[in-house]
Amino acid sequence: MGIIGGGQLARMCAGPAAELGITLSVLAESDEASAALVVPSSPVADHTEADAVHAFARHCDVVTFDHEHVPPHVLELLVAEGVQLHPRPEALTYAQDKLAMRERLTELGIPCPRWARASTSADVTAFGDQVGWPVVAKTPRGGYDGKGVRVVGGSSELADWLERASTDGTGLLVEEWVPFRRELAVLVARSPSGQAAAWPVVETVQTDGVCTEVLAPAPDLDVGLSSSAVHAALRVAGALDVTGVLAVELFEVGEDGGDPSFVVNELAMRPHNSGHWTMDGAVTGQFEQHLRAVLDLPLGSPRPHGRWTVMANVLGGDLPDLYPAYRHVMAHDPEVKVHMYGKGVRPGRKLGHVNVLGDDLGDLRARAGHAADYIRGVVTE
Amino acid sequence: MGIIGGGQLARMCAGPAAELGITLSVLAESDEASAALVVPSSPVADHTEADAVHAFARHCDVVTFDHEHVPPHVLELLVAEGVQLHPRPEALTYAQDKLAMRERLTELGIPCPRWARASTSADVTAFGDQVGWPVVAKTPRGGYDGKGVRVVGGSSELADWLERASTDGTGLLVEEWVPFRRELAVLVARSPSGQAAAWPVVETVQTDGVCTEVLAPAPDLDVGLSSSAVHAALRVAGALDVTGVLAVELFEVGEDGGDPSFVVNELAMRPHNSGHWTMDGAVTGQFEQHLRAVLDLPLGSPRPHGRWTVMANVLGGDLPDLYPAYRHVMAHDPEVKVHMYGKGVRPGRKLGHVNVLGDDLGDLRARAGHAADYIRGVVTE
Repeated sequence: MGIIGGGQLARMCAGPAAELGITLSVLAESDEASAALVVPSSPVADHTEADAVHAFARHCDVVTFDHEHVPPHVLELLVAEGVQLHPRPEALTYAQDKLAMRERLTELGIPCPRWARASTSADVTAFGDQVGWPVVAKTPRGGYDGKGVRVVGGSSELADWLERASTDGTGLLVEEWVPFRRELAVLVARSPSGQAAAWPVVETVQTDGVCTEVLAPAPDLDVGLSSSAVHAALRVAGALDVTGVLAVELFEVGEDGGDPSFVVNELAMRPHNSGHWTMDGAVTGQFEQHLRAVLDLPLGSPRPHGRWTVMANVLGGDLPDLYPAYRHVMAHDPEVKVHMYGKGVRPGRKLGHVNVLGDDLGDLRARAGHAADYIRGVVTE
Repeated sequence: MGIIGGGQLARMCAGPAAELGITLSVLAESDEASAALVVPSSPVADHTEADAVHAFARHCDVVTFDHEHVPPHVLELLVAEGVQLHPRPEALTYAQDKLAMRERLTELGIPCPRWARASTSADVTAFGDQVGWPVVAKTPRGGYDGKGVRVVGGSSELADWLERASTDGTGLLVEEWVPFRRELAVLVARSPSGQAAAWPVVETVQTDGVCTEVLAPAPDLDVGLSSSAVHAALRVAGALDVTGVLAVELFEVGEDGGDPSFVVNELAMRPHNSGHWTMDGAVTGQFEQHLRAVLDLPLGSPRPHGRWTVMANVLGGDLPDLYPAYRHVMAHDPEVKVHMYGKGVRPGRKLGHVNVLGDDLGDLRARAGHAADYIRGVVTE
């Protein structure tokens, strides 16, 4: 199996691939890419260069992705050359292009924030005056972890984006600002044969636009909301013919005391940060499941091992050498599962994550948070 | 970390090493060795050649083993050159040499079958006449999976071994034949700092001298026996200064209706088939724990995820291509965890194993056995 992109998501496929007897090859950004450090076959090339990607892909039985950034013309060439891509470009476009995603989800009747395509300052102003300010503006392509997203009180704050959008003709996505109760995510996997499996709905906690904590399952989640969210994710996976793992990020909304409901925030068609808890917390982790789905192998059970699993991301901080902190965390709590990505430290960069399982959610959050904060260097005891 | 030997035990370290951020290098038997297929740095060399092993080891911070077959003179050279070996040769000798093991365990007061060193036919006859026939004869070095072991009714059945033993001066180990109730194993890990952790005692089921099934924990195990077996394994690990994983294979003995007790059968100082269940069935699997112990990182929790885990080995059978059977097994039971070693099929060869967790032991045994038998090709539905 080929994976385009050598980040931590490709790296975390390596263990399950070895266990399943699947030979991986990774198209890496550099010899020092996270996945290139652990996968024997890791040629280095630029994923935007069609010839290089094709040279890589024709030695693979099937090709999947570490990220959504392979340009459409490269994907089209691969398909024309007979490469088996999962997810297929027809599906992947809805994870690459947020305007296309909003159009399609709206057609399917999946709840979304009110939205519009804006090409001019006047479009933005008209939308904001209609739904109320502030509004959320997004570049349709290339955003992640809060990049490519702005909350704006007027169209003048988007002058640079609108100028670029008018040049390339793409337009911007503008959405109503949703006063959400919290953020949720549903992770499902779907195979080319159409088999699908869903993990429980989780709560995701973001800090400065970056996911820092995941609670699995989402605590105190309304049963009807849980069911309708899973149903919606499976429906999206089926209607878009998604193959592999699909992450659907949601906002839980509703008046205080009223019935909760949700709107879809984003889609990702690959293993996702909101699913890292499954590596230790479920019978089948998301990386194994993605491999099984992409190869059209029967899917594994998503059953959780315990009552709760809490995941906390380890972000780069001031400590240049993480090893002593990492030793300390292991000694402090033998139940904490530490996952490191082999990446150099930069402030705010995702360097790893920790998982911890058990029966007491508050205790687990404290322990996972302590481990992540200690490795980051923001707590020292 | 360097691992000498590229078998499945080294291979199964690859996933945990990637997650812990540890860079592995494997001294492999060939480019097609099980671990060489999944570890980027896998130089090929003969583990009995001191210069080759030293050239490998001096690029590693620490070196451990996939098997016990590195000759003592090679180990001594490595230590003299300052290589950090775990387990150290002083400990490893008790896993390499069964006569040395029996002497040391007897000194420690650890229960063993009655035993003797036999150099001549007369030695064997005298021992058998004393303890009763048949007796179990073992070559002190090089045996595994039933190889190097014979149950004999008289010394004439050992003529070839005695001739070889008289040439090399090693002698044979002869032991009383133990009418055991069942076989058990205790797996512990111990770090250079002396921290130790034990998984629950398991029952191992052998067929034709090869382990085929492991039940974790051992069902209906006497609480006192469990405690004394774990205590003995931890005592052996400490007294022998074992570093890394230690497997202690036991016979459960005792008259019907009487109190059960145990004698030690074998020691292994590396991850062991009796611990494969921990990969899916415990918070910390044996491969992760071995890496942590060898690096003197704090050890992880050995807590099981569920009531029972059953492991069944997948042995080579008549099916040359396992893929269709493997698909079937995944479809048949989404809870079964399949682990394959990337090895070519030969009858009786260990090609992989399956684990399954749950509350109903009989059901789990049936399901694990079915999966293993189906991949082997001995059942077809």
